[in-house]
Amino acid sequence: MSSLPLSQVLSLSNAQIAIEAAATLAFALSGLIEAARKRLDAVGVCVVAGLAAFGGGTLRDVLLDRRPFFWVQHAAWLWVLLALCVGAMFFMRTRHFALTERAMQWPDALGLGLFTAGGTQIAIDATMPPIVAVFMGMVTAVCGGVLRDIVCNEIPRAFSDHRPYALCAFAGAWLVVLAHELAMPQWLGLVAAAGCVTLLRALAMLTGWKLPAWRADSE
Amino acid sequence: MSSLPLSQVLSLSNAQIAIEAAATLAFALSGLIEAARKRLDAVGVCVVAGLAAFGGGTLRDVLLDRRPFFWVQHAAWLWVLLALCVGAMFFMRTRHFALTERAMQWPDALGLGLFTAGGTQIAIDATMPPIVAVFMGMVTAVCGGVLRDIVCNEIPRAFSDHRPYALCAFAGAWLVVLAHELAMPQWLGLVAAAGCVTLLRALAMLTGWKLPAWRADSE
Amino acid sequence: MSSLPLSQVLSLSNAQIAIEAAATLAFALSGLIEAARKRLDAVGVCVVAGLAAFGGGTLRDVLLDRRPFFWVQHAAWLWVLLALCVGAMFFMRTRHFALTERAMQWPDALGLGLFTAGGTQIAIDATMPPIVAVFMGMVTAVCGGVLRDIVCNEIPRAFSDHRPYALCAFAGAWLVVLAHELAMPQWLGLVAAAGCVTLLRALAMLTGWKLPAWRADSE
Repeated sequence: MSSLPLSQVLSLSNAQIAIEAAATLAFALSGLIEAARKRLDAVGVCVVAGLAAFGGGTLRDVLLDRRPFFWVQHAAWLWVLLALCVGAMFFMRTRHFALTERAMQWPDALGLGLFTAGGTQIAIDATMPPIVAVFMGMVTAVCGGVLRDIVCNEIPRAFSDHRPYALCAFAGAWLVVLAHELAMPQWLGLVAAAGCVTLLRALAMLTGWKLPAWRADSE
Repeated sequence: MSSLPLSQVLSLSNAQIAIEAAATLAFALSGLIEAARKRLDAVGVCVVAGLAAFGGGTLRDVLLDRRPFFWVQHAAWLWVLLALCVGAMFFMRTRHFALTERAMQWPDALGLGLFTAGGTQIAIDATMPPIVAVFMGMVTAVCGGVLRDIVCNEIPRAFSDHRPYALCAFAGAWLVVLAHELAMPQWLGLVAAAGCVTLLRALAMLTGWKLPAWRADSE
Repeated sequence: MSSLPLSQVLSLSNAQIAIEAAATLAFALSGLIEAARKRLDAVGVCVVAGLAAFGGGTLRDVLLDRRPFFWVQHAAWLWVLLALCVGAMFFMRTRHFALTERAMQWPDALGLGLFTAGGTQIAIDATMPPIVAVFMGMVTAVCGGVLRDIVCNEIPRAFSDHRPYALCAFAGAWLVVLAHELAMPQWLGLVAAAGCVTLLRALAMLTGWKLPAWRADSE
């Protein structure tokens, strides 16, 4: 609202595109490792990697009625994804890469931060109310992984592993909203939010912090 | 088609908004109890409650290309949902609330009736053909629960428990279409449909009526 | 791009409508047999058949922001689907039809070819880049089955059974793009692609050709 059209165009072509690209790569990598652990076939690996990478942003764009999608406007990314998957399949097979749960968490945490910041900003630019913008940031960041887990026939880890994942995104997204309300430079809010989310998530993983479970039917 | 724009605006701001609100609360409650039974964490509880409450209507709006969504236009509802979930977690923990399958069925039946009526009317207002309007009413009413079950990694109960659920919605939705075709007052069709669906569902639960199973591969 | 509006209208009213209709029937039949094998109730049978038949095309139309949907414009198809399901339930029950995995594969292969060709052409008409058009053809052909499997609480067979399914669609979709780039008649590209995909899939089933599995974490 407080930004001129020109500054919007500039910010879109710089900070936001870079964020979207970095986050897409991070999530594709996390999806690829997950699919490999599940022993899916070549097609399944590409689909799960693509769903993790583009699923959250695409769902956000469908909800915001925003076209064209990131991967339609920058169709080269689909080629990058394909090349990444095929390359990884050959590289990982020859090198006996250790596909551990741990290896997946770091690109995942980075993608979580970057997608939250980018998604919230896009929803603010679409003049959504603050709580909806925060929700859209969470959708962007979390739903790629949720769709990945649904396709792999699991309860999405984001809702069931009792570790703060979406909650980190929730906290960080408010930073973007705050920066917008205080009319601070957009890049500042984006960097602060992405960094804060990634840091929170990393801390949560390192300290093993757990969300309280629902204890209604026990004790 | 037979209604003036003014009456549409009036009906939207009265009967339909009230129906959407009551049904949203009923479904949120049903989703919340389900998530608690599944022992999801705090984030999972909020998401499953929100998916049950807003999932069906949002899917209908995506299919009808209708914006803004209910929860974007009335963003306060997201706060209500959050408060409901947080409050329920504290209240239910301290009071040792008995989370039975049964407790979930009554708000569910009410939400089924209210969402069917509201969703069918919205599709009729969007000049959909009768069968599509009926389908949209069913999507609104049933798909919240279907998405809830898919996220919880179950075959949706609506399709597999052999008790009439979507079928009640199917029957009731035709009442809305009928009232529209006969140019009867809109509120009459909405109330009749909502009541009829809820009653049918309640009867089905009380009498234990079952849908015929497919017996092709046995006997 | 190279085609006149008139020829587009003609081709849409002939080749493409016929393809969409035949493929819809083939997939509805495959979904119906799958639902019967899963012993879903009457509602579940109709929903899974409908999801298999219309799910892929509807998802493509949501992604392309294309309205009205096939089943809104031709609402009679919903009646056809309902009649098909009800009729099949009676016919199959009385005749003790053998519901084998095999019976499902042939209409599935035909639908795969027809939907790939039709979906890719629609994306090209919407001026999508080639790789996106190929992807949309795959979504149209594969996602009906994927949604069917997700609702039935299985890992989608298309991603995990190590037999080329989406890969056949991938190969065939490029034929449509090629025909468009070479300015060949549209029907030629559509027929060639549909035939090629169906043939490839049939060959893959008959010869038992398997996709290479990911062997990173073994040996």
